[in-house]
Amino acid sequence: MPIPEVAWFDAAPKRKRYLAGISGGADSVALLHLLHRHGFREVIVCHLDHGLRGRASTGDARFVEKLAGSFGYPCESGKADVRAVMREKGDSLETAAREARHAFFALCSRKHRCPRLLLAHHADDQAETVLWNLLRGSRGLSGMQESQVLQVAGRPLECLRPLLSSRRDDLRGWLASEKLSWREDATNAKPIAARNRLRHEVLPLLSDIARRDVTDSLVRAAGSSSEHRMIERWAVKQAAVLDPQGRLHLPKLRTLPSELQAACLYDYLRSSGVAELSRDLVLRGLALLDVDGPPAVNLPGGRVLRRRAGRLFTA
Amino acid sequence: MPIPEVAWFDAAPKRKRYLAGISGGADSVALLHLLHRHGFREVIVCHLDHGLRGRASTGDARFVEKLAGSFGYPCESGKADVRAVMREKGDSLETAAREARHAFFALCSRKHRCPRLLLAHHADDQAETVLWNLLRGSRGLSGMQESQVLQVAGRPLECLRPLLSSRRDDLRGWLASEKLSWREDATNAKPIAARNRLRHEVLPLLSDIARRDVTDSLVRAAGSSSEHRMIERWAVKQAAVLDPQGRLHLPKLRTLPSELQAACLYDYLRSSGVAELSRDLVLRGLALLDVDGPPAVNLPGGRVLRRRAGRLFTA
Repeated sequence: MPIPEVAWFDAAPKRKRYLAGISGGADSVALLHLLHRHGFREVIVCHLDHGLRGRASTGDARFVEKLAGSFGYPCESGKADVRAVMREKGDSLETAAREARHAFFALCSRKHRCPRLLLAHHADDQAETVLWNLLRGSRGLSGMQESQVLQVAGRPLECLRPLLSSRRDDLRGWLASEKLSWREDATNAKPIAARNRLRHEVLPLLSDIARRDVTDSLVRAAGSSSEHRMIERWAVKQAAVLDPQGRLHLPKLRTLPSELQAACLYDYLRSSGVAELSRDLVLRGLALLDVDGPPAVNLPGGRVLRRRAGRLFTA
Repeated sequence: MPIPEVAWFDAAPKRKRYLAGISGGADSVALLHLLHRHGFREVIVCHLDHGLRGRASTGDARFVEKLAGSFGYPCESGKADVRAVMREKGDSLETAAREARHAFFALCSRKHRCPRLLLAHHADDQAETVLWNLLRGSRGLSGMQESQVLQVAGRPLECLRPLLSSRRDDLRGWLASEKLSWREDATNAKPIAARNRLRHEVLPLLSDIARRDVTDSLVRAAGSSSEHRMIERWAVKQAAVLDPQGRLHLPKLRTLPSELQAACLYDYLRSSGVAELSRDLVLRGLALLDVDGPPAVNLPGGRVLRRRAGRLFTA
């Protein structure tokens, strides 16, 4: 099988420094080989043992360290006890695992002064994520982005997913055809039963019903949805609803269609640092546009969104 | 069970004339009863036999005519041979059934000089539609809209779906608690095996995985996606990329983010009457923004999208 063609590997600057999250599974092993083959020099391999695979995890860590070493890449290995965090904080396995990864990557980022992290998520992961987010009823349809800046431990970390358009079978097929090995089941990063069921039950069922592989459709829908978000961002900026003091200018807000009013209010509340923004909260906030309605709405954290003198502002 | 509370029935003008698509199944029978209970006077019941249910369809038609008569509503009954149309035109069952309905409703609309059609689609239909469109890989996520103007046989027909937020079980529960009957399996309008599988296999599986009924999540996602489309429409208008001759003004277009460029080009091509607009076609069109690229791109129907003197236009 030919080497997976991904424009990113040709276009990205080879001398920049990159962290790479490598579990040892086929996807991340393919990522690492591709980085090496394309001449990337400054790669720091970051391997986190989530503490979910018992003894096999020691083997995973050794495998990753050895592979990194063979390319001359330094390797950071970390260990977390995700189940213990779950029990302590009452988090879901998904949340606890994500937080452990973020903390580990933040550590690596600080230590190596590197604000860039490569992740091996591919199109099949993206299709699962689209379904998963759809089930959770998140706002609109959403998937992972090829490039996304996360705030991790108070610092920005740019996550890059160059394989997001590649198919799992193509990556594995290429590894196999090159006689490159990986750790089977080193799925540290995806320990979630629900996601496994999406992969093994839902996606095959949907493909059977549609009489073709639906992964591309789901990936395309995620891309289109991310385009919508970019357009929304442009529209919110273009609407220019803030006054010089950074408060929402009601006469301007009232000239907009209601959908854009909601997007502007959402954006204002988020940049005011209001946590837990629900659709319901935004709708209650929009009720303040009506001068005959209530003059204030309670926000989480004891704060208030208030209408006064033709402005909306948090206090 | 209480009467389903739907604001539309209280708010809509009672003396306006409405066509109502009534198959005789529980959903449309509930719609008809709700119209009658809320004092709607000018309802014209429209029943199309799709020719798919053999003898049972005669019973459906009689049931609907009788019910309409009991409310003093006139009833238009039509008959189509959807399978014959399929064979003739090579259409899918879905397409043939939709075209037969549109032709029938257009006929009723003309005869009764009524540009408004009520349809009984509910939240469970909406969830199926979201999945169905997702599988077909349509642009982004999309569902049915509560109000939508269709061009049918060259004339506008406003389709209204007042039950789009109501649950199937609530409608049936209400009918049953009021001892109101309906025709079981009068699913003339939904003859599609794939959609039945979405209802009977996919939705229960997804709900089992999410450990709750996912219908609301899917309906919410559709609503959010329709908000995105409204914002996109505003952004395209705001971008004002047409010159006085109605051609795309390239210097203006180039100032926009690429996602909005695509939306503007899509909008321009659609309003220029270009049929079969694919995402791929729009991307090839966008390549014309590059003055070093080709000066024209072929469009379906022998037409061309051309770049000349800082403008893009179809010819």
